[in-house]
Amino acid sequence: MKYIAQIDIMPLKELLDPQGKTVEHNLHNLEINGISNVRIGKHIELVVEAENHQAAEEMVEKTCKKLLANMIMESYQFELAEV
Amino acid sequence: MKYIAQIDIMPLKELLDPQGKTVEHNLHNLEINGISNVRIGKHIELVVEAENHQAAEEMVEKTCKKLLANMIMESYQFELAEV
Repeated sequence: MKYIAQIDIMPLKELLDPQGKTVEHNLHNLEINGISNVRIGKHIELVVEAENHQAAEEMVEKTCKKLLANMIMESYQFELAEV
Repeated sequence: MKYIAQIDIMPLKELLDPQGKTVEHNLHNLEINGISNVRIGKHIELVVEAENHQAAEEMVEKTCKKLLANMIMESYQFELAEV
């Protein structure tokens, strides 16, 4: 069966996010006020082919840990939907 | 009122996504098979302070168009939730 995984990888809350800070700073220059706490991470979509939901979940977990997320600086979460 | 916006910015479907292709290729090297159609974009979280839901939505739209997304190559979508 085929599943679509929607994965979000974000910098850990304890860490400074310089990219987010830069965006926040530039918003004020563009005269957009009232936006704060900007944090920027990655969004990844992929298609998994697996026997069942659990197997697909394990594959996505493994992919995140081995390749997509840097577990020292980032956390991930994902949702799986059957195609 | 305060809202949290969860924004996803993805490369347009018509465009090649070299970062996604690289990840896909490396998955095979790591002996993870069965994953395809990898597309990589940005995930952005931010806090908006606005009078109501509609005003918050307009602010996030404006922020995406003016600063966060490159509308020639990317599309965005977002969800707003009251804090």
